[in-house]
Amino acid sequence: MKEKLYIIKIGGNVLDAPKALDRFLGDFADIKGKKILVHGGGKIATELGKKLGIETKMVEGRRITDEATIDLVTMTYAGLINKKVVAALQSKNCNAIGFSGADGNLIKATKRPVKTIDYGFVGDIEDDSVNVELISSLLAQNVMPVVCPITHDGKGNLLNTNADTIAAVLAYATAKKFETHLFYCFEKNGVLLDVNDDTSFIRELKKPQYEELKNKKQIYEGMIPKLDNAFETIAKGVHSVYICNAFHLPSIINNTQPIGTRIC
Amino acid sequence: MKEKLYIIKIGGNVLDAPKALDRFLGDFADIKGKKILVHGGGKIATELGKKLGIETKMVEGRRITDEATIDLVTMTYAGLINKKVVAALQSKNCNAIGFSGADGNLIKATKRPVKTIDYGFVGDIEDDSVNVELISSLLAQNVMPVVCPITHDGKGNLLNTNADTIAAVLAYATAKKFETHLFYCFEKNGVLLDVNDDTSFIRELKKPQYEELKNKKQIYEGMIPKLDNAFETIAKGVHSVYICNAFHLPSIINNTQPIGTRIC
Repeated sequence: MKEKLYIIKIGGNVLDAPKALDRFLGDFADIKGKKILVHGGGKIATELGKKLGIETKMVEGRRITDEATIDLVTMTYAGLINKKVVAALQSKNCNAIGFSGADGNLIKATKRPVKTIDYGFVGDIEDDSVNVELISSLLAQNVMPVVCPITHDGKGNLLNTNADTIAAVLAYATAKKFETHLFYCFEKNGVLLDVNDDTSFIRELKKPQYEELKNKKQIYEGMIPKLDNAFETIAKGVHSVYICNAFHLPSIINNTQPIGTRIC
Repeated sequence: MKEKLYIIKIGGNVLDAPKALDRFLGDFADIKGKKILVHGGGKIATELGKKLGIETKMVEGRRITDEATIDLVTMTYAGLINKKVVAALQSKNCNAIGFSGADGNLIKATKRPVKTIDYGFVGDIEDDSVNVELISSLLAQNVMPVVCPITHDGKGNLLNTNADTIAAVLAYATAKKFETHLFYCFEKNGVLLDVNDDTSFIRELKKPQYEELKNKKQIYEGMIPKLDNAFETIAKGVHSVYICNAFHLPSIINNTQPIGTRIC
């Protein structure tokens, strides 16, 4: 039987709120067994950018990453946020270790080719570009990776990469070796039928229903790449995928009061 | 017989100059066998601090580290510099992995108690606070740690710690398991008898001569803590310690044209 591995992606709204973050990290530290945390940090990068006079340019929710911006997000994600999270987890008896994709060649990516838009230093990840051996070795020593959304191209360039995608790639890369459970945690209770009603979350979402809701525009914007990632990981052997509220993580994992959307 | 381990501390003047840094990292990548790189980055932090309106306050060469400053140095050392160095080494076929002391609980420190001066978030390291097991496991997998001068206190606080001290502590912590060779690399050829004459470097420096030169004020300022660290590591079992020019590293290691000061 494969050992369980929990991969948890935590979004911006929790990262920005010290008290919420502390509570979430306590819950993460308390998860029994092997686990990996993936974090973003876009809002904090945008704020720091303002102070440094680095303008934020977004196209379809993705940051245009010129040279000043890759420095900015590297400082913010791999430096400030990653190390604060790691230090906090250490204080909660979780032996965390911070990672960018460059560290230990954890995740290699390719600089996105310029078509109509030049995204700059943005990386797309191939299927076989995760160093699963290093992850397994660390997990076996009870050292839990905390991964920020920076990758590298093997040619010396750091690349900005979507954190949801990083969580997905880590999930299916580890799925051969582990029974991998992927959680996309954010501020809502799951995929909502009515974005203004947090009780309207779907308990189980299957591909045909997803396509239908997309066509009816009941699911839109940022949720679409998240769900596309989620369905892809299931197809690639990930055991379960949840989209849920960050604070419902323990109840879902311990199956006490599971609230959230399970992708089937 | 113990396996050789090279621990190399690289100083600010090389970090600040992209061409020099690239050459140095090429030399580092070419060293055969196990190795650890320790870097600083004070000048880059000071410059970034200016842009962010964070004033630099130094007392006896040490940075007073208030809350804004610990964020600044964490971003700079653990984020910007560490990840650029790691990505560059990856491009040179060296499987580097970045570390702060919080990562994998690599180096635990104690917040410096307030006596006459409140240094703020500055960490002092105890002898037994290095996770040698994790280092050994990574080196055995040919993954080479790149360590920045940030530690943690195990209570969730990141601490600013002198990079020379970090290199020294790593050297003597690993000396039980490895034949450890420590190199303090900087822009001079070694410990100079005349600070304006780069050919005046001492080939071998022993404790009595060091004390004599200190009394005569021929050795002063920043060189004193470096040499105190160096003599301490020798006393604690480190096989050799050199103070040398960053670009003489290959010739010292390969014993082709060894220029530099060996501490005996």
